[in-house]
Amino acid sequence: MIKPRTPPGVMELLPREQIAFQRMLDTIRRTYEAFGFLPVETPVFELSDVLLTKTGGETERQVYFAQSTGALEKAREEGAAEGVPELALRFDLTVPLARYVAEHEHDLAFPFRRYQIQRVYRGERAQRGRFREFYQCDIDVIGKDALSPRHDAEIPAVINAVFEQLAIGDFTIQFNHRKLLRGFFEGLGIEGERQMLVLRELDKLDKRGESAVRETLLGEAFGLSEDVADKLLAFSRVRSTSHDDALAQLAALGEGTPLFNEGRDALVATLGQLKAMGIPESRYAINLSIARGLDYYTGIVYETTLDAHPQIGSICSGGRYDDLASHYTKSKLPGVGISIGLTRLFWQLREAGLIDVASSNIDVLVALLDDAGFADALALSQALRARGLRVETQMEARKIAKQFQYADRAGIRFVALRGEGERSDGTVTLKDLRSGEQETLAMDAAADWVAGRLGASAA
Amino acid sequence: MIKPRTPPGVMELLPREQIAFQRMLDTIRRTYEAFGFLPVETPVFELSDVLLTKTGGETERQVYFAQSTGALEKAREEGAAEGVPELALRFDLTVPLARYVAEHEHDLAFPFRRYQIQRVYRGERAQRGRFREFYQCDIDVIGKDALSPRHDAEIPAVINAVFEQLAIGDFTIQFNHRKLLRGFFEGLGIEGERQMLVLRELDKLDKRGESAVRETLLGEAFGLSEDVADKLLAFSRVRSTSHDDALAQLAALGEGTPLFNEGRDALVATLGQLKAMGIPESRYAINLSIARGLDYYTGIVYETTLDAHPQIGSICSGGRYDDLASHYTKSKLPGVGISIGLTRLFWQLREAGLIDVASSNIDVLVALLDDAGFADALALSQALRARGLRVETQMEARKIAKQFQYADRAGIRFVALRGEGERSDGTVTLKDLRSGEQETLAMDAAADWVAGRLGASAA
Repeated sequence: MIKPRTPPGVMELLPREQIAFQRMLDTIRRTYEAFGFLPVETPVFELSDVLLTKTGGETERQVYFAQSTGALEKAREEGAAEGVPELALRFDLTVPLARYVAEHEHDLAFPFRRYQIQRVYRGERAQRGRFREFYQCDIDVIGKDALSPRHDAEIPAVINAVFEQLAIGDFTIQFNHRKLLRGFFEGLGIEGERQMLVLRELDKLDKRGESAVRETLLGEAFGLSEDVADKLLAFSRVRSTSHDDALAQLAALGEGTPLFNEGRDALVATLGQLKAMGIPESRYAINLSIARGLDYYTGIVYETTLDAHPQIGSICSGGRYDDLASHYTKSKLPGVGISIGLTRLFWQLREAGLIDVASSNIDVLVALLDDAGFADALALSQALRARGLRVETQMEARKIAKQFQYADRAGIRFVALRGEGERSDGTVTLKDLRSGEQETLAMDAAADWVAGRLGASAA
Repeated sequence: MIKPRTPPGVMELLPREQIAFQRMLDTIRRTYEAFGFLPVETPVFELSDVLLTKTGGETERQVYFAQSTGALEKAREEGAAEGVPELALRFDLTVPLARYVAEHEHDLAFPFRRYQIQRVYRGERAQRGRFREFYQCDIDVIGKDALSPRHDAEIPAVINAVFEQLAIGDFTIQFNHRKLLRGFFEGLGIEGERQMLVLRELDKLDKRGESAVRETLLGEAFGLSEDVADKLLAFSRVRSTSHDDALAQLAALGEGTPLFNEGRDALVATLGQLKAMGIPESRYAINLSIARGLDYYTGIVYETTLDAHPQIGSICSGGRYDDLASHYTKSKLPGVGISIGLTRLFWQLREAGLIDVASSNIDVLVALLDDAGFADALALSQALRARGLRVETQMEARKIAKQFQYADRAGIRFVALRGEGERSDGTVTLKDLRSGEQETLAMDAAADWVAGRLGASAA
C-alpha cells in the first residue's frame, strides 16, 4: 500500500474550494474577453534551447526539465553529464508568448491581443505559500514595429474590471513610467548602467525602509550626494490621492529632460483615458516609487494592491516593453501586458479568511422518495436540464431528511421532488434551501421558479 | 537568433482554432455540470512512487519525469544511474483520481461525482496524429463499498448530451457488459485466465477481421473447437438497430450462467433507464463485440462512434470498475466513468474537414473614425461592456473600410461607430457584418440591437 499524497509545493483543492477557484478563473477569462482579447494556449513543454535564451541565474536554476523513461535511459547510457535535456517546462507565459508570436507572426493580425490562462512551473524552495506549480492569467497587446501608447492606458481599465468582478475588496491600481524615472535620473546626472542600479535600490524601499536605502545611496557603491539622494527619495514618495491630485503632482514636477517630459506626458494621457473610460478615481493612483525590477520594462509600469491587505503585495503587475521576441525574430514587437498569479492570490485570500465557502456548481437536487418514482425522477431531471439547469439525480430512494441534508452540505440550493401525490397531480414540489420557501407547482412552472430565484440572486 | 518552434507531438493552435477548441471544452464542461458533476484539478506532477504503482510495460516507458536543474545536477554528481526521479507527469486522469479520492476520502461525500478536464503526458513515438500532450475530459462516479448500477445507465445520457451539444454529426453510443461476456465464456467452458485472452482476441475483430481471429481461436494457442469459435463470433456479431431490437436480441440470448444472466439483466435495466431519460433510440445500441481490452473493467463498457466517420474509432469510451484505489486505501471504491480525448478528436475532426472556422470570441469592434472621437469611442466601448458584450476598441483612427475589413477577417460580427454626426445626435451606427444590415440608433438601444441578434443566432 502506497500513501496517497501530492508533491510539496502544489495546491490541490477540495471540490467546494475548486468551485470557488474556478469561478475566479472564469471571471478573469470573461473580463479579458470583454476587452477583446483572444485565447492562446501553449504546450507545457518547450524545447530547452528555445525556452532558455532569455533566462539566466536564478530563474534558469528553477527550470524543470522533462524526460521520458526512454530519454532518461539513453542519457544515462551515453553518460550525458553536460548538456540539458531536450524539453523544459514553461516557467512563465511571456517566453512562450514571444515564441508563439515569432513562430506564427505571418498568421497573426497586429496589434495582437491575447490572453493566456495556464499553469507554470518553477523549482522553488519548499516553503509555505511558495508554489512549484501555479496559474498565471496574462494579457498582452503586441504591436508590429510600433504600438500606440493608448493600449497602455487601456490595461488599467482591464485590471479595474477584473478586480471589480472578483469582488475581493477595495483595490488601487498604481502606476509609474520608466521614462519619467530615467529622465529624472538623467536630470540628476545619473546615467547609463547606474540608472538600473539606482532603480533596483529604490525598488527595495518597501522592504528595507527609507533610511536603509538612503544609506546605501550615500555609500561607496553609489556615492551620491545627500542632495541627490534626498531628491530621489522625495520623488519616490510621490503618490496621488485623486485624479486631480495626480495631475497636479505631475505638473508640480515641472520640466525636465526630453525623456522625463515624455514619461510625464504619457502618464497625463493615461489619466485622461481612464477618466474617459469611467474608471472610479479611487481605483487608480500614480506612485513614483514603483519600478518593477526587471530591465524588461521600458514605459508604463503597473502594480495593484488590496487596500485592506497591503501585506499581500501586488496582486496584478506588468508594464510596457520595447521588444518581445528579439531572440526569435528580427521583427520589432513592442508590447504591454499584465499577469495575475491566481494560485498564490487564492492561497493568500484563503489565509486571510477572504474566500467564502462556495455554493455548489449544481443548481438542483432531484430527490427520490420511492423506487416506483425512479423513472419519473430521471424524466424530471432531464426536463430541468433542458431548461439550462444543472441537476443531480438521487439514484437511490432514502429518507427525505437525508436528501435535504445532503443537498445542504453540498451547497446545492434547490431540491425538487415528486412523491405519489405529485405524480398523480402532474405537479412538482420545490424547496429553496437558502430561503426555506417551498412550493408545489405545475411541472411546466418548475424550471422558471428555480431560474427566477437564481437570476434574482445573480443580479 | 533561435528558430522559434514547438517540440514534436504537441498541438498548438492559432487563435481562431483555439476559439473553436475552447468552445468544445466549454460545451463538455457545461454538460458535465448539467449532470451534477463537481470540478477537480490535480497537479501535473505526482510523486513517482505514487504514480507508478498501477502501470507496467508500455505505459511506464512512456511516462515523463520532471527534474529541476538542481535535482538534475545532484543526480549527476551522485551518479544516480538506477532509481527514477522524484516527480512524474500524469499520463491519464484515472490514477490521479484514485490518489485524490484515497487522499481526501474523509472530506468527500459518496457517491463522489467529479469531472476533470486537464492535459496528460505520454512519451509517444513521434507520428502524425500521435500526441505527447493532450486533453482528457473525464467524468467518474465513485461509490464507497457499493455503487448502484443506476449510475452506469446515467453515463450514456451524459455522452448523448455532450455529443448532441458538440454537434459534430450523428453518433451511436454502444455498450456491452463484461459479466455477459464472461458468463458467455463460462457457458462455453472458457474459464479463468483464458477468458481475458479470448476477450483480447475478440477485441481485435475490427482490426484483423473475422476470419483471421477465427483462425487464431482455432489455433494452438487457444485450441477452441469450430463450434465454440463460431459461437463466440456469432455472439460478437450481435448489434441492435433500435430499442426494441436490443431488448429482443438480449432476450434471444436465452438463459446462461448466473453471471451471464446478471450481465444481461443489467443491460436490460440500462435500456429502460435510457428510455425513461428520453434519449433518442437512434443514439444507442448494444454491441456485444465491445470488450475494452483492459482488465480494469468489470461491468458495463461503452464506446461512442460517429456514424459518418467510423474510421475515427471510439471518441468516448469507458466503463464500470470494481475498485479504483486498491493501491492507496483499504476502502473499496467501485466506480464508473468515461473519457473524451479532446486533442485527438479535434485533430481528427479538423483532418476530416469538420471544424468550421470559428467566429471570434469578440462581439463588437468599436471603430475610430477621427482622433477627436477617441474619448467617445472609449466610453461607448465601456457602455457596451457594461451590457455584457465583448468589445475591442480600435485605438487608432484609420479608413473605415480598413476597420470593416479587419473585423471581417477577425470574425467579429458587429461594428459600432460614432462619427461627428452620431456624436452630435447622441446616436450610434451599428453594422451586422453577417447580414449586412446597418442601422443608426439611439445610444441606449445599441446593446439591445446587438444582443438581440446574438441571441437569435444562438437559439
